[in-house]
Amino acid sequence: MSKEAKSNRLKARLPRGFSDRGPAEIAATRRMIETIRAVYERYGFEPVETPAIEYTDALGKFLPDQDRPNEGVFSFKDDDEQWLSLRYDLTAPLARYVAENFDQLPKPYRSYRFGWVFRNEKPGPGRFRQFMQFDADTVGSSSPAADAEICMMAADTMEALGIKRGDYVVKVNNRKVLDGVMEATGLRGEGNAGKRLIVLRAIDKLDRLGLDGVRALLGAGRKDESGDFTKGAELSDSDIQKVELFLSARRTVQKRIYALAGDISERLETPDSELSTALKIAGWLAASFKGSTLVSEGTNELVQIAEYAAAAGYGGDRIQIDPSVVRGLEYYTGPVFEVELTFETKDEQGRAVRFGSVGGGGRYDGLVGRFRNDQVPATGFSMGVSRLTSALIHLGKIDTKPEAGPVVVTVFEKNRLADYQHMTQKLREAGIRAELYLGSGKMGPQLKYADKRGAPCVVIQGGDEKAKGEVQIKDLIEGAKAAAAIASNQEWRETRPAQFAVKEENLVEAVKEVLARHKVTWGH
Amino acid sequence: MSKEAKSNRLKARLPRGFSDRGPAEIAATRRMIETIRAVYERYGFEPVETPAIEYTDALGKFLPDQDRPNEGVFSFKDDDEQWLSLRYDLTAPLARYVAENFDQLPKPYRSYRFGWVFRNEKPGPGRFRQFMQFDADTVGSSSPAADAEICMMAADTMEALGIKRGDYVVKVNNRKVLDGVMEATGLRGEGNAGKRLIVLRAIDKLDRLGLDGVRALLGAGRKDESGDFTKGAELSDSDIQKVELFLSARRTVQKRIYALAGDISERLETPDSELSTALKIAGWLAASFKGSTLVSEGTNELVQIAEYAAAAGYGGDRIQIDPSVVRGLEYYTGPVFEVELTFETKDEQGRAVRFGSVGGGGRYDGLVGRFRNDQVPATGFSMGVSRLTSALIHLGKIDTKPEAGPVVVTVFEKNRLADYQHMTQKLREAGIRAELYLGSGKMGPQLKYADKRGAPCVVIQGGDEKAKGEVQIKDLIEGAKAAAAIASNQEWRETRPAQFAVKEENLVEAVKEVLARHKVTWGH
Repeated sequence: MSKEAKSNRLKARLPRGFSDRGPAEIAATRRMIETIRAVYERYGFEPVETPAIEYTDALGKFLPDQDRPNEGVFSFKDDDEQWLSLRYDLTAPLARYVAENFDQLPKPYRSYRFGWVFRNEKPGPGRFRQFMQFDADTVGSSSPAADAEICMMAADTMEALGIKRGDYVVKVNNRKVLDGVMEATGLRGEGNAGKRLIVLRAIDKLDRLGLDGVRALLGAGRKDESGDFTKGAELSDSDIQKVELFLSARRTVQKRIYALAGDISERLETPDSELSTALKIAGWLAASFKGSTLVSEGTNELVQIAEYAAAAGYGGDRIQIDPSVVRGLEYYTGPVFEVELTFETKDEQGRAVRFGSVGGGGRYDGLVGRFRNDQVPATGFSMGVSRLTSALIHLGKIDTKPEAGPVVVTVFEKNRLADYQHMTQKLREAGIRAELYLGSGKMGPQLKYADKRGAPCVVIQGGDEKAKGEVQIKDLIEGAKAAAAIASNQEWRETRPAQFAVKEENLVEAVKEVLARHKVTWGH
Repeated sequence: MSKEAKSNRLKARLPRGFSDRGPAEIAATRRMIETIRAVYERYGFEPVETPAIEYTDALGKFLPDQDRPNEGVFSFKDDDEQWLSLRYDLTAPLARYVAENFDQLPKPYRSYRFGWVFRNEKPGPGRFRQFMQFDADTVGSSSPAADAEICMMAADTMEALGIKRGDYVVKVNNRKVLDGVMEATGLRGEGNAGKRLIVLRAIDKLDRLGLDGVRALLGAGRKDESGDFTKGAELSDSDIQKVELFLSARRTVQKRIYALAGDISERLETPDSELSTALKIAGWLAASFKGSTLVSEGTNELVQIAEYAAAAGYGGDRIQIDPSVVRGLEYYTGPVFEVELTFETKDEQGRAVRFGSVGGGGRYDGLVGRFRNDQVPATGFSMGVSRLTSALIHLGKIDTKPEAGPVVVTVFEKNRLADYQHMTQKLREAGIRAELYLGSGKMGPQLKYADKRGAPCVVIQGGDEKAKGEVQIKDLIEGAKAAAAIASNQEWRETRPAQFAVKEENLVEAVKEVLARHKVTWGH
């Protein structure tokens, strides 16, 4: 190996779209996961885990990019020539799991899981090819109460993570409404499936491109800043207006321009403002797309979700009906959800940005049924753990200050390593994080090392101390303070010494005192 | 989708060698990981994580099966035609990480990490293609004290997990000694690399095949029970005897047949029995393979490790020198370690079996250097979390009794779902795990569902109760006891009723009383 390596040295680098994680991010993620887990378990969800690899056909092709069949998913052939894939989400594997274990599971089956998922996509800023999701799903219930509960749980999760009410919103839409609008534009039947996909994707980009961008994508097409041209859906002007009408539903209703339609308006007596908005949107959509069964089914489900949310006390601005929500995955069949962080923050260039979506989900009544002779209704939600961690770290909602390092036992005399090892072990046995210096440096580099590790103190024993049965303890935190103050104040040594000697048998006790003085605790 | 799916239904199944995990196993693994983490952090190791995917060349080919170049690792081409692989262990990615971040890291760099690794191997009983490892490594120290510390930490981990002293052993050997013995058999030079590999693998199978099996693999070859023939190393009879002599070192010394050689014997005054055994083995090996620089270097390192272990109080039977340890991975350059569970248990057929290896590691001084112009010494240890979990569950050292399920709020009147949702939310707000029944069944199926979920109690509110402002609570644990006793004892209803009514505003309090009565707590 060595000869070849020397002449043609390997470059140490990660593939694009992947990243390493250090102590602060790992600790932040662990705390987040524990918090989310506690919320999900309070809702009666139980854990289940599936592996990272599945048969490609079992996962299906439901990613937004399914028209490019070899992209989106990392796939490879098994030795029996069957195709395997890395999971691209946690929902498709759950559908396989439920179908495989159907008879043993309680129905409805509430479960949660978290883990890494993989997307074979073009990486970009904040866009990774491996990221962590935390999902919860209810399989076996067709009730909108199940959808409402998932939304309530998403809201509770945000607040448990320290995101204030008003700083997030759970937006709810319904694929049936989207499909109904599409029908109204004449995009019916198998032949128009491709066009419908283009329209859905255009709507999905409303936040990023604004209404003008979406309008271009619904029509002839759009050229982006890099000059790349994306072909549009080529809808007629009147059809484009219908889609715009639909997209503006929430804003329109909030401006209270339009009169309300149908019997839904009778329920407007409720004092809850968001429920009343939801009912108005539903009434307005029903009136605007009169005669569409899909729109009326979809809006009825939205109203039920809004009512359940209101009854459970979530009707404020926590859960909102918003017809512009699409969600990219193609297995959704009914209500779809999206959790957005609504506050603004600054990017590196100092521009105001919204964090936007940190999770989403929806109802996927067809996914388990792919494996069975009957349909199995299901609804679920997926939290983007990696995105949410970045957002919370960026906002200072997660403490990223590194923990105190271990106590470092230095090596003054190399031939007495076994003695120093013994001292280190004594400290560890007392529950103190401690390490023996294992490098080859002299005392200077050893103290620098201890500093770099964030050690609260170091232990030193030279020949003189050994002869007296003593050890020296150097308090690095005090020492750093003293070093900062030393220009104006030289008497610190007398009042609180940064280095002192103790009897060897009192080492553990003395180190504990230093740790207590500086309130050093190692978290869990 | 649905038409195609109906005519050609997908089979829900996992690829061979992969498995799903349920609540008990997930909880057991979580507790294990927390325990291991606490030990590693007490030793001053800090967390770092790398992704599951790396460039294939960065991982290198160090698996035991490297002579079959397309096997062992799951690989696929990126869109820029570069090969990517799923990591097959956590050591090769760490080497890449250290090389990539060399200047920022403290040296020596102590770190730990856990995660899934993937092997594209033939699956078998207890042999998975995805399994979890928990690693700790010290990079930048060439001192045997670093190796000794890793072994001590492995021993501490076993005891922290509840495995009694004497029920495990950390075995230590040295690749240099193995290489020296190989030289003594005349297997020198590049031309004999293939044969040396066959010999190493033969030695590695000692536990499984016994001395006769190893002897066959060192000679002409061996036919297994299925009739498959494995070609041997074709050593001469006298060379086979040399390898056997070496393998029997520990047993031989323990029988105290051989005289001790050289100055090592002078150190035998120590009272510690394992250190004395280690010294005797080293002396005996040095005498048996006189003139081999590799054997003498290797045995000296082994003696130092034994001395450090003894000085730190690990010299009993926790850390043992054992020349039969090999470890399959090919990047090891010095000391190698293996943790074995030594107690016996019964398999499904009632036969006595030893659990054997649950982890291992060693020194890999060349791995980081592949990316650099200098060598970087490193040593580490990998715990097989999946294997260890199975072992501990099998032994009853891990509680696999499922936790109590959530309180189930039943749906008596379907049009009052919002009311029931509200009650459920009240319970959750009080920190009680609770769920609303979301299926379509009547009361019978709802109670069966609650039973299947392990619910401690259910909440029922029909029209009568509603009119009185009351709810019924049915205590399922009490009910089950009563049902068991009811044949002989009919008066249970009077003394402690399994179903009772409370005012709606007292629901939370009443449920808490039921939970307290049965000591229901939901763990973390």
